[in-house]
Amino acid sequence: MYISKSFIPILKNNPSEAKIKSHQLMLRAGMIKQSSAGVYSWLPLGFKVMKKIEKIVRDEQNKIGVQEILMPTIQSSEIWKESGRYEDYGEEMLRIKDRQNREMLYGPTNEELVTDIFRSSIKSYKSLPQLLYHIQWKFRDEIRPRFGIMRCREFYMKDAYSFDISDEEAFFSYNKFFLSYLKTFKRLDLTAIPMAADTGPIGGNLSHEFIILAETGESKIFTDKRIFNLNTDDTKLEKNSLASMRNKYEQYYSVTDEKFDRKEFEEKVSVENRLITKGIEVGHIFYFGDKYSKSMNASVDLPGGKKDFVKMGSYGIGVSRLVGAIIEAKYDEKTEVMKWPISIAPYDIAIIPMINKNDITALEKSNKIFKELEKNDIEAIIDDTEENYSSKIKKMNLIGVPYQIIIGKKTDNDLLEFKEVGRESQKLKLIDIIKLISEQKVRN
Amino acid sequence: MYISKSFIPILKNNPSEAKIKSHQLMLRAGMIKQSSAGVYSWLPLGFKVMKKIEKIVRDEQNKIGVQEILMPTIQSSEIWKESGRYEDYGEEMLRIKDRQNREMLYGPTNEELVTDIFRSSIKSYKSLPQLLYHIQWKFRDEIRPRFGIMRCREFYMKDAYSFDISDEEAFFSYNKFFLSYLKTFKRLDLTAIPMAADTGPIGGNLSHEFIILAETGESKIFTDKRIFNLNTDDTKLEKNSLASMRNKYEQYYSVTDEKFDRKEFEEKVSVENRLITKGIEVGHIFYFGDKYSKSMNASVDLPGGKKDFVKMGSYGIGVSRLVGAIIEAKYDEKTEVMKWPISIAPYDIAIIPMINKNDITALEKSNKIFKELEKNDIEAIIDDTEENYSSKIKKMNLIGVPYQIIIGKKTDNDLLEFKEVGRESQKLKLIDIIKLISEQKVRN
Repeated sequence: MYISKSFIPILKNNPSEAKIKSHQLMLRAGMIKQSSAGVYSWLPLGFKVMKKIEKIVRDEQNKIGVQEILMPTIQSSEIWKESGRYEDYGEEMLRIKDRQNREMLYGPTNEELVTDIFRSSIKSYKSLPQLLYHIQWKFRDEIRPRFGIMRCREFYMKDAYSFDISDEEAFFSYNKFFLSYLKTFKRLDLTAIPMAADTGPIGGNLSHEFIILAETGESKIFTDKRIFNLNTDDTKLEKNSLASMRNKYEQYYSVTDEKFDRKEFEEKVSVENRLITKGIEVGHIFYFGDKYSKSMNASVDLPGGKKDFVKMGSYGIGVSRLVGAIIEAKYDEKTEVMKWPISIAPYDIAIIPMINKNDITALEKSNKIFKELEKNDIEAIIDDTEENYSSKIKKMNLIGVPYQIIIGKKTDNDLLEFKEVGRESQKLKLIDIIKLISEQKVRN
Repeated sequence: MYISKSFIPILKNNPSEAKIKSHQLMLRAGMIKQSSAGVYSWLPLGFKVMKKIEKIVRDEQNKIGVQEILMPTIQSSEIWKESGRYEDYGEEMLRIKDRQNREMLYGPTNEELVTDIFRSSIKSYKSLPQLLYHIQWKFRDEIRPRFGIMRCREFYMKDAYSFDISDEEAFFSYNKFFLSYLKTFKRLDLTAIPMAADTGPIGGNLSHEFIILAETGESKIFTDKRIFNLNTDDTKLEKNSLASMRNKYEQYYSVTDEKFDRKEFEEKVSVENRLITKGIEVGHIFYFGDKYSKSMNASVDLPGGKKDFVKMGSYGIGVSRLVGAIIEAKYDEKTEVMKWPISIAPYDIAIIPMINKNDITALEKSNKIFKELEKNDIEAIIDDTEENYSSKIKKMNLIGVPYQIIIGKKTDNDLLEFKEVGRESQKLKLIDIIKLISEQKVRN
């Protein structure tokens, strides 16, 4: 792909409306374009990154056995009246009347709709557990949309729902998602910490937020530093292994300010381990038992012949929000250098030839390298413009492609100037560059 | 995957509200569930098929160099007032007021929004052509939604847009999509015929619908049978080759009733070549020049220093509708047998063991076969229920998985009873079954 033919409208300066660095970068690098307040179009660069994130999220859901469905964006008000949330939800819910004057709404979340699907299909405990997820656009009519896609109105989210026969089985499901979330964020090269959290309008009494550290985060967090040393390497997808994994994380104090208790914090965490900082919520899981199944009458036949309401949980990851969150974690706005993790980079490598009107040797060389990379499943972008070197490098640093090949007049055929963004450049053969990138891609 | 653990709520009988066979099958096989009038949830089976169709549509768009973006579902009314379509569109447009009382709408199509994106980014003829597409949910508030997902309100659609400097270049873009559509439908195992069509509310004077034959179709069509013998095998992605491909198709009379002229039909088509039948529209392409670029002021700098409005076309494929259209083409409702093309089947093969409480030999054999298939990237579903044979076979015929392995007590280890749906069963070794299916998958 030539950059001159691609739809990547780069901006020279930071737009004044962008107050945080993810918003700045996404506008500067032409990843998104605002279409109305808090509503954005995703241009090719932003779209590619979001799709790669979605793929990882999906993959990790499938690994724990969640089945994918797709619920519509527009819902009827009736099921929300059944659950009692139609009035509660307030003005954040986008309410709509159709041409027949029926009350509809743009789904802000899907507990009601998925409960309706469940109750009309599943009648027996024998079909439990059921784990269902979908990845769909949602709408919350924020009074003051801001920070680009971090606090917008139309956003892309993975939400999953579990249905179990008992609390014990439901905790097993809950813990599967707990593990799955840690693995998902790790693959995105993020350190996300699970924190005890309030349940808010979703309800229930067990909930964790997954938070990544970022100075621009909206959540204040209080945590024991030792939680950063934990990992899930030995955890198996079995009841006991998952329970002890969750225990391992819960032994360390780790909460957002809603749950903060200074006395408890100071008692449980020694001074040298205390960390008070800010973070961004990237996932949130809830267990709420029969809150929806009872009000909406979703029950199953039990072994003895009795019936009982199913126990439910819900599990969200903000897919579009993650694009911004990763930028907040990885973008150095002082040097204007972004580096995407290879697993979600819009391109694997940038080829930057020195071009002027009378000499296209470097461009021809670039084309050859491009083809060789393509054969090896490495996606490259060529900057075929006639801009000078430093402006080309600046542009690619902004776009955040993690590797660069720089081709000047003196580049001989064998050794290429290769640079991993943020490191010194080195001379490498193309075959070694291919090997290096392929290895990185497999690892992620 | 065991069918007992999957979310496939099969119905025993045809629901009375389903008047056409795609609607019947999709409800019977648990592919969709209605959530409100003309709005559906996609359950795992339906979702899998739709996603596979989406992947083929996307792949064929990428092949002709269209760049993928994603525009939001909710749009501001302002751009529609600019183009003049806000009043014209009538009650089919779902109009919404947000909490600030701003006039918004759920996009029924995206000419305005994509023109707005284009005009703010592209300033010079040097960046043309630009071909952009997205695959997104749309909403049309049909007064009488019916026929399941064939005439529903919330639907999934690929729409692409081309921007060119001149009519000549714009026809080149138009013809790229013409080719791409023929290839897309062929990969879906459909024979779609391009037909001269009216442009309706989109505007312009050049347009083709792509129609597949089906008795339940809503479009009446008049065509020369010889058009079915054409193919695009020799067509290259070059201006002249594409133009002569389109000429080849246009030499045969082929129109929907909106464009039908009896005199012309009888003059141009000899009696033995006349075909008057019904069909389903699965794609529609339009060229409308500067209709939107002029009213919305989307112009580019020309080589000489002047400016001109860009020439635009738009190109739609109904992704969710295709699920229904393929069923209309492939489902035999008398025998209740469906057979999905392998390229989009929800599973590649069904394993049907004879199981009873005291003997799980057949189930164990099924598990072994499942693992072997999985290793070879063949996705299977096992019917692990204790139902009798004939009801299991009936169920799988309905689901439409194209191949079956039937495992009775007498199945010896080497030779398996293998059946391609709609053909006689035969005895084959597992290794030969794997070879057969893998070859079919590659071909599609």
